[in-house]
Amino acid sequence: MLKRTYEGQDCNLARSLEVIGERWSLLIVRSALLGVKRFDGFTGHLQIARNILTSRLARLVELGIMEKVPYQDKPVRYEYPLTPMGRDLATAVIALMQWGDRNLPLEQGPPRRAEHIGCDGHVHVRLGCGKCDREVHGEEVAVRRIR
Amino acid sequence: MLKRTYEGQDCNLARSLEVIGERWSLLIVRSALLGVKRFDGFTGHLQIARNILTSRLARLVELGIMEKVPYQDKPVRYEYPLTPMGRDLATAVIALMQWGDRNLPLEQGPPRRAEHIGCDGHVHVRLGCGKCDREVHGEEVAVRRIR
Repeated sequence: MLKRTYEGQDCNLARSLEVIGERWSLLIVRSALLGVKRFDGFTGHLQIARNILTSRLARLVELGIMEKVPYQDKPVRYEYPLTPMGRDLATAVIALMQWGDRNLPLEQGPPRRAEHIGCDGHVHVRLGCGKCDREVHGEEVAVRRIR
Repeated sequence: MLKRTYEGQDCNLARSLEVIGERWSLLIVRSALLGVKRFDGFTGHLQIARNILTSRLARLVELGIMEKVPYQDKPVRYEYPLTPMGRDLATAVIALMQWGDRNLPLEQGPPRRAEHIGCDGHVHVRLGCGKCDREVHGEEVAVRRIR
């Protein structure tokens, strides 16, 4: 989490980073997008210490990005599915993953690929213009203050 | 920066977060995408402590995300333009900003908007399929291991 001094910041990137800027959070969300739901699934997937995972999952639940749902009684055990707000992080996660594919390439090629379910095409993150409906390149975008 | 134990991780999201996962780095890149280049520009824009800004700029230069270019002699002063690798973060920055617009809305509406230069249309981040060429929604995407 960013420091409290950020909380009033009038910028939705800063606000997003308050929520998911903590180093482990996006990796937990990535594993969840890959279908991991249970505590031991995350520890196996991420090599994260159990105490850190416990605190990050609690925080992600508190923030509304994951739910905590019992899947077993005696002893009670929980799983952590993503909420719609959590699944909505897919675009940002894929954008960062593909930035890594392009700019920090591994010799053996990328290990994972985003695929269109059913069609199996490769999914790319694109910038599109809502007015001319064209695909837009990064250098054609200006982020402007609108109020 | 993530801990060193991450460095061998075979995941380009983890590798991207090694590079830009530090809480201030994406905010500095965001300001740079808005046109800020100089030290005092960043401090005015971000309310970041000068010693933290100094270390983050040095790190972003070391990582190849920014350049350090003198713009004045006596005393020598530097500015920090983004490299192509840094400008390529625009998509991820806009994706996170728009996730915040949707999921952490401010009562008075979003303060900034990504616009298509020249056309002035609103730029959105979209997922597109390279095979069927359609726009894809988050729930239609599977991230699959390919090796």
